[in-house]
Amino acid sequence: MNHFLFGACYYPEHWDRSWIQADAALMAQAHVNVVRMAEFAWTLMEPARDAFDFGLFKEAVASLKAQGIDSILCTPTATPPRWLTAEHPEWMRVDINDVPFTHGTRQHCCTNNPGFRAESRRITRAMAEAFKADAAVIGWQTDNELYCHVEECYCESCQVGFREWLALRYDQSIEKLNHAWGTLFWSQQYDDFDQVVIPKKWRQPAPCNPSALLDFRRFLSDSVTAFQREQVEILREVNPDWWITHNGVFYNIDYYKFAEDLDFLAVDVYPAFWGTKPEDFIGGSQLNERCRQATGTYIVPEQCGGPGGQIDFLQPTPEPGRMRLWAYQSIAHGADGMLHFRWRTCRYGAEIHWHGILDHDNVPRRRFEEFAQEGAELKKIGADILGTTKRVEVGISHSYEQDHAQGVLSFSRPQPDAQRELLLGTLMRQKVAVGYVNEADSYAGLKLLIVPSAIVMDAERAEKIEAFVSQGGVLLVTATSGQRDVNNHAIEQTPPGLLSRVLGITVEEFGKTEHRRMQLQGAGLEMDANYYEIIQCTDAEPLAHWHFEQNPQTEAAEGCVGLSCNEFGAGKAYYLGTFLNEASAMELMQRLCDVADVQPLGRSDTNVCIIERYAADRRLTFVLNNYPEPKEVTALACGQNILTDQSCDGTLQIEPFGVAVIRS
Amino acid sequence: MNHFLFGACYYPEHWDRSWIQADAALMAQAHVNVVRMAEFAWTLMEPARDAFDFGLFKEAVASLKAQGIDSILCTPTATPPRWLTAEHPEWMRVDINDVPFTHGTRQHCCTNNPGFRAESRRITRAMAEAFKADAAVIGWQTDNELYCHVEECYCESCQVGFREWLALRYDQSIEKLNHAWGTLFWSQQYDDFDQVVIPKKWRQPAPCNPSALLDFRRFLSDSVTAFQREQVEILREVNPDWWITHNGVFYNIDYYKFAEDLDFLAVDVYPAFWGTKPEDFIGGSQLNERCRQATGTYIVPEQCGGPGGQIDFLQPTPEPGRMRLWAYQSIAHGADGMLHFRWRTCRYGAEIHWHGILDHDNVPRRRFEEFAQEGAELKKIGADILGTTKRVEVGISHSYEQDHAQGVLSFSRPQPDAQRELLLGTLMRQKVAVGYVNEADSYAGLKLLIVPSAIVMDAERAEKIEAFVSQGGVLLVTATSGQRDVNNHAIEQTPPGLLSRVLGITVEEFGKTEHRRMQLQGAGLEMDANYYEIIQCTDAEPLAHWHFEQNPQTEAAEGCVGLSCNEFGAGKAYYLGTFLNEASAMELMQRLCDVADVQPLGRSDTNVCIIERYAADRRLTFVLNNYPEPKEVTALACGQNILTDQSCDGTLQIEPFGVAVIRS
Amino acid sequence: MNHFLFGACYYPEHWDRSWIQADAALMAQAHVNVVRMAEFAWTLMEPARDAFDFGLFKEAVASLKAQGIDSILCTPTATPPRWLTAEHPEWMRVDINDVPFTHGTRQHCCTNNPGFRAESRRITRAMAEAFKADAAVIGWQTDNELYCHVEECYCESCQVGFREWLALRYDQSIEKLNHAWGTLFWSQQYDDFDQVVIPKKWRQPAPCNPSALLDFRRFLSDSVTAFQREQVEILREVNPDWWITHNGVFYNIDYYKFAEDLDFLAVDVYPAFWGTKPEDFIGGSQLNERCRQATGTYIVPEQCGGPGGQIDFLQPTPEPGRMRLWAYQSIAHGADGMLHFRWRTCRYGAEIHWHGILDHDNVPRRRFEEFAQEGAELKKIGADILGTTKRVEVGISHSYEQDHAQGVLSFSRPQPDAQRELLLGTLMRQKVAVGYVNEADSYAGLKLLIVPSAIVMDAERAEKIEAFVSQGGVLLVTATSGQRDVNNHAIEQTPPGLLSRVLGITVEEFGKTEHRRMQLQGAGLEMDANYYEIIQCTDAEPLAHWHFEQNPQTEAAEGCVGLSCNEFGAGKAYYLGTFLNEASAMELMQRLCDVADVQPLGRSDTNVCIIERYAADRRLTFVLNNYPEPKEVTALACGQNILTDQSCDGTLQIEPFGVAVIRS
Repeated sequence: MNHFLFGACYYPEHWDRSWIQADAALMAQAHVNVVRMAEFAWTLMEPARDAFDFGLFKEAVASLKAQGIDSILCTPTATPPRWLTAEHPEWMRVDINDVPFTHGTRQHCCTNNPGFRAESRRITRAMAEAFKADAAVIGWQTDNELYCHVEECYCESCQVGFREWLALRYDQSIEKLNHAWGTLFWSQQYDDFDQVVIPKKWRQPAPCNPSALLDFRRFLSDSVTAFQREQVEILREVNPDWWITHNGVFYNIDYYKFAEDLDFLAVDVYPAFWGTKPEDFIGGSQLNERCRQATGTYIVPEQCGGPGGQIDFLQPTPEPGRMRLWAYQSIAHGADGMLHFRWRTCRYGAEIHWHGILDHDNVPRRRFEEFAQEGAELKKIGADILGTTKRVEVGISHSYEQDHAQGVLSFSRPQPDAQRELLLGTLMRQKVAVGYVNEADSYAGLKLLIVPSAIVMDAERAEKIEAFVSQGGVLLVTATSGQRDVNNHAIEQTPPGLLSRVLGITVEEFGKTEHRRMQLQGAGLEMDANYYEIIQCTDAEPLAHWHFEQNPQTEAAEGCVGLSCNEFGAGKAYYLGTFLNEASAMELMQRLCDVADVQPLGRSDTNVCIIERYAADRRLTFVLNNYPEPKEVTALACGQNILTDQSCDGTLQIEPFGVAVIRS
Repeated sequence: MNHFLFGACYYPEHWDRSWIQADAALMAQAHVNVVRMAEFAWTLMEPARDAFDFGLFKEAVASLKAQGIDSILCTPTATPPRWLTAEHPEWMRVDINDVPFTHGTRQHCCTNNPGFRAESRRITRAMAEAFKADAAVIGWQTDNELYCHVEECYCESCQVGFREWLALRYDQSIEKLNHAWGTLFWSQQYDDFDQVVIPKKWRQPAPCNPSALLDFRRFLSDSVTAFQREQVEILREVNPDWWITHNGVFYNIDYYKFAEDLDFLAVDVYPAFWGTKPEDFIGGSQLNERCRQATGTYIVPEQCGGPGGQIDFLQPTPEPGRMRLWAYQSIAHGADGMLHFRWRTCRYGAEIHWHGILDHDNVPRRRFEEFAQEGAELKKIGADILGTTKRVEVGISHSYEQDHAQGVLSFSRPQPDAQRELLLGTLMRQKVAVGYVNEADSYAGLKLLIVPSAIVMDAERAEKIEAFVSQGGVLLVTATSGQRDVNNHAIEQTPPGLLSRVLGITVEEFGKTEHRRMQLQGAGLEMDANYYEIIQCTDAEPLAHWHFEQNPQTEAAEGCVGLSCNEFGAGKAYYLGTFLNEASAMELMQRLCDVADVQPLGRSDTNVCIIERYAADRRLTFVLNNYPEPKEVTALACGQNILTDQSCDGTLQIEPFGVAVIRS
Repeated sequence: MNHFLFGACYYPEHWDRSWIQADAALMAQAHVNVVRMAEFAWTLMEPARDAFDFGLFKEAVASLKAQGIDSILCTPTATPPRWLTAEHPEWMRVDINDVPFTHGTRQHCCTNNPGFRAESRRITRAMAEAFKADAAVIGWQTDNELYCHVEECYCESCQVGFREWLALRYDQSIEKLNHAWGTLFWSQQYDDFDQVVIPKKWRQPAPCNPSALLDFRRFLSDSVTAFQREQVEILREVNPDWWITHNGVFYNIDYYKFAEDLDFLAVDVYPAFWGTKPEDFIGGSQLNERCRQATGTYIVPEQCGGPGGQIDFLQPTPEPGRMRLWAYQSIAHGADGMLHFRWRTCRYGAEIHWHGILDHDNVPRRRFEEFAQEGAELKKIGADILGTTKRVEVGISHSYEQDHAQGVLSFSRPQPDAQRELLLGTLMRQKVAVGYVNEADSYAGLKLLIVPSAIVMDAERAEKIEAFVSQGGVLLVTATSGQRDVNNHAIEQTPPGLLSRVLGITVEEFGKTEHRRMQLQGAGLEMDANYYEIIQCTDAEPLAHWHFEQNPQTEAAEGCVGLSCNEFGAGKAYYLGTFLNEASAMELMQRLCDVADVQPLGRSDTNVCIIERYAADRRLTFVLNNYPEPKEVTALACGQNILTDQSCDGTLQIEPFGVAVIRS
């Protein structure tokens, strides 16, 4: 990108065509330089089969460009027209009760249906060709929030697709599938791939085969990736200058792999889903990090433009200044583009109160003022931001594969993503440079790596972790790691199996307590827990032990090791045989940052965020005040607040919901 | 009616035929003058197709008449016979998962199925002809509690019926439907009516089109009204002397329109559904008012005869005196007939503990004594009651249309019907003459009109409201009013749109707070709220403003107007930009009654009810003690307690659960 | 049996065949004398139709026998192979939404399907023939935990089967069915059996016919009994020396009737489902008693071998010593065989953390030590145990028929099984010899009989109860007893109908209170209740009366009798017109034990259990310490602790989770 993108999602189709010019003019007033359009406008663009009409959007693109505003277009495949679903009712997604969905909302067609795939390619090509020569169109978004509502489908195409995917994965060998799924358990052996059906969790007499469930999750991710890839290939073929993105992120796509087909990933951010208390910033930060771990650089095609609501809920209203603060939160995490959803609140449909910048009556009010201020600021500082990257010294390992492997066999234990959220919040409150790092990505540059419950382990993963530590890194691995192979089978070795060498331990037993109060004590820690692993230190040093308040003599874990540290090469590898809670995370992270020599980027009250983006020639320190009161910030890098052009000597008074960007 | 109806629901088919005579004699002893029969006896009356046998009910009607007891008969269409459903399994209702219901309960046939409609007409005519000449049959009830269990059906007949209904509503123009439904949102446009399917809330990938949902609710109401009309027309044709009613009231029929085909509506009242604490009277009062708003005069075909229970629940037992108290509560609200459900508790079936007046063992116990006392009293005072109408000085606007428009897009905000219940309870506790008034009905005679969240506004409604105020009425309108058009679209104007003139305001912004404590302060009010509207007074006077306890400087609503009053013509129009809670309703209603010069009908403890019925020549003041202790009542109209023949000088000592009816 | 069975469930199919020998040797080390095998190995034994291969299990049986270990085999019908379900998708169970289950878990084929029945007989015969001459196979288990996941099925076979079962029950007379189901209610009459469909609770518009629901529950029990009987007949035919059992117990089979086809019933016991607090012992005791009431003698084919977990839950870990304690709990209740589930934790499938004795890594740890200790002890004392029977002086009447009759019409009242659990726990804490007694079984030997809510009464039941009392027994009957006939209809007589004579009372009225505090006072009792019956003493003596704290003057029950005692023949018959809670059960049971001269078997802290098994020549007193602390036990029978060979003078210090078995 050659400038920082700022704008809004725009729906000219919802309003009289005559409004476009005035809209464009008002946008320009707010320093908008880009809009996103057309993701739900298939029927409008193709009212009957092959009767394409791109006139409205042609006009919109042109009118906007006249005001200096570029356009991002979207393939409209989230909302196939009624003439299409009426022709092909068999293309609708089918729910877990074998009931097909009906027309009338979105995401109703199965993205694995070959017929629908052909339609997807057809509309993509038609649209691409129509805008091929239009320089105002700078990039594309594929579809819209794939899998945001539903990801599972039980239609015949999915059954067939799943079988084909399995045959490919298992080299056409049903024996390999039988082995991988452990079908000897409960006599589930298959004779050929045609016998396999999609597992239906909780809709079969007994619990499903967890390896089958895991493969189904992998299939869901891979198949929607393939669906998107077909669109990407067409767009690239028609005009190689376009960049292509998609707006995630949800829980059922491996975005790290999914984004390989894209120029960069994008993320829709509605922080009010998590609330408006100061500490609620963590939800939005986690969302940004889940996107950033995939492509590093990204944009936000939808950032909240007011409270959202759909039929049966309404989010709390962001106070004045909040929307802008939240926008800068995304930018601090790495966003290089910021579009608010949406220009004007729609007067009909299921999102009548999903607030846009303008209200139903088209009157600019406080949200418009705030939006325009943000536009002016980003115009001023956008060039400084572009080219910088978020600094990450503490990495939290992220992996969809680990999440799904745990998810299908959760045993109600804290899941990796919940642990990540806790760790991210804790470390952000400690003002250190923390971020998510995909487990398939490089660990270069990290001082401290935290691997929360990486239950699936293979040689490649283990060697990468070993290399990180042996080269001087500090590592923390938490409970349940290393216990399973890629088929989600328990390993034959004593856990943590492939991680035993780097950690210098074995895990002899694990279990849950219930009414009995248990603490992990030692090394300055006193943490309550209700899940324990009994560590045997083969090479590691024991750091903390399990203790029971009452009747310790009848407890198997009493006095056993629960936290260990192993010197390995030039680094240190810690293993924690339980899950952290808020208090213990704060203590342990403090300690590990000290060990790894990770310094805070500044000091302030708990929920003030300090995040750094940097390039070779500059550091930008974002200070974000999530409180409705002014706050004091100290120990910052010295430099200049490029929003206000005031110099900063490392100390700052920041207004309620205020933002500072210190360039140094 | 020429006398006040008193009696019970009677099921001679559940007992040996020989018991009828003894039953009739015992009824006569309790002063019963009417029974209701046959609503679930189709198979008995037509054991095989066209093999009619009305013998049992002929005998019952005759035996009862011999004791001076008239009969109300019912069309038995709630329980079609097994031979019919076995012939036509395709006539069964279909649930939202496309699964047909099975035989074995009631309401299993789809009332929109043309085949079943023909059967409904056939049995109605056969039954009507059979009793055509029987003078003891004085009236009819159509079907039984239509839509009490389920109203939605997804069968093919309903799909077709919905399309036909839509085509009629939208003048055969699919463009009009597309406009009304806002199908430009999410690319939902239809090319013709045959493409439309019934929206399935929560069973589609994403939230449904709210305008489609609203039309489906309208269709459900209109189509069941049409189903009933066919029966009504036959009954009127066969014997024009019969009156015809139906026993409601539930949430999915617009009874105001539904009742246009009837002589009057009826309502089944089981107050124990709401509990037996003194304050629980509000549930029963609301139910009565929901019936009264439709036809003014009404009867109660089923008033509780003991605790009810169905399979998995059992209501608390009414203490001695409660059943009679509850019966008078219905009468005070306007009932001109009172039948208890049911004569004798049935020994089998799903309502084995839906208690009748007599127990399974046919022994008359305390419930019979209470029933007989009530019978004796109504015999004595019935003539005084007949011809009187409930006095209503404070009207609470009622509208099924508003309820459904809000319901399909609720945003979890307090719904109009919940607001009505709160207001009714509050005003009844203030002992003023309050009642529901349908928004399509006349406002004549009202001093104060409260319009809770009338979100749908059109010129007719707005003009009626303006006329009421300009002629001197006092009006209160609450939050969200006037925000949508009849298609449930947000209006293009600044709200409250068509109500802006009479209220003298615009509403600039609205929102929800969450953890932040907010109060509306001013005009002697201090009310907590978590939903606000920011009022701009164009003509009105500001009365109260929003204030936040903490960090007011970061709140958009701080200091803004939340309550206003506009002098309009000879009246005053208040707008409250939030929803009332119990405390604030008490305060505000007190204030508005003062402004409107509405005087209480008497004074007593909180949950003692004082309700007036009047005619040109008399006022009947009903005093109802919902407490298990005696209560003092003062400031009553002077007159005579026609239950005891004691004179009343405006002060009364009323026994626990006691009733007084003062004629003045 | 000629020795006490001790062992584990063994799955040689989950591991390399070469492991069998080492497994057998390690088992022998732990004194294992029996394993159970093959219940989920159909596909392995018949990889394609009629291509039988019993090699693995032949080898396992032989290798185990070489170490002195016998085998119990199982018919593998809980997990039909994929080739079978692929051939016959129409044999799958169908859920209440008419959706067939899919392959991939267990219990997926309908046991009422004639085709699947034939397969069941075929595999049973093939397997039986294969092991016919193998002396190491001592017995069989049919299928596995029938109805543990689902019992209801709505497939066509079940519809047909239900009709046939009904036709048989009602002598081919649809009139009898109509009478029994009370089809006159809601016009449900059937013309022939082919019109009947399985009632779908909560999936029909209104509540189902409770008599139909009851018959459906009876059909479910009878039909699965018939399914099993076919297997039993084949096994007996092939080798009459084999004993045959089945591992229950769940809620939807009448095991008393079901077990008539077996040599004895068995029960799978996982006490951690109820938790690990001392008082949680009651769950496991109730489970054992539910098995014991069926056949007196029984075995435990699956006793917990560690915490269990399935996909989404994980039980708390039993502390060291707990597993052994729980095993003795089952033995004390009457088990003559004890197999732990399972030898080694499986590395794949849905029960990856359903812990076996060995972990995934095959390392013997503390669970193995505990298992081996138990094995050594049972080897030592097994002969003493065999031939003894649990002493029961206080019987708690058990009846699946009563449970189902109440269950289909529960009215949210405390159900009999919950009352039994409360009573069992209470009486076990009082250390008396208490047990469940099937209502169809003999009452001989009981001093005190408690009949909790026996709502269904007929002459046979009533006469048996009368005989028990007249011969000197003490009886307590609780609320709702005697109110219905075998069709679940309310009786025509005043309740308790057939029990009125022995109890000397009638019940005039019943009901629920809600917010009003009510107590039953008298005879030293002061029990809170919210359900009352008003007793009229015809012959009995009133013992306690209902009293209301507030406004007693408005309560029907105030001052009425709630507890009565009738001298009848040589005994006493108490009636309690409400349901017990924990406090009142303790008081009332103490009182009745005194009256019935029931003495405790010893004294100790609340949750220390003392249970006696006896034979003509010996008494074995089991003392079980459910506390994690040592406890003092006094007033025991004197004798010798056969676990330690120490003599016991009636006093004992028992270690945390300790067990003593005193022979006297």
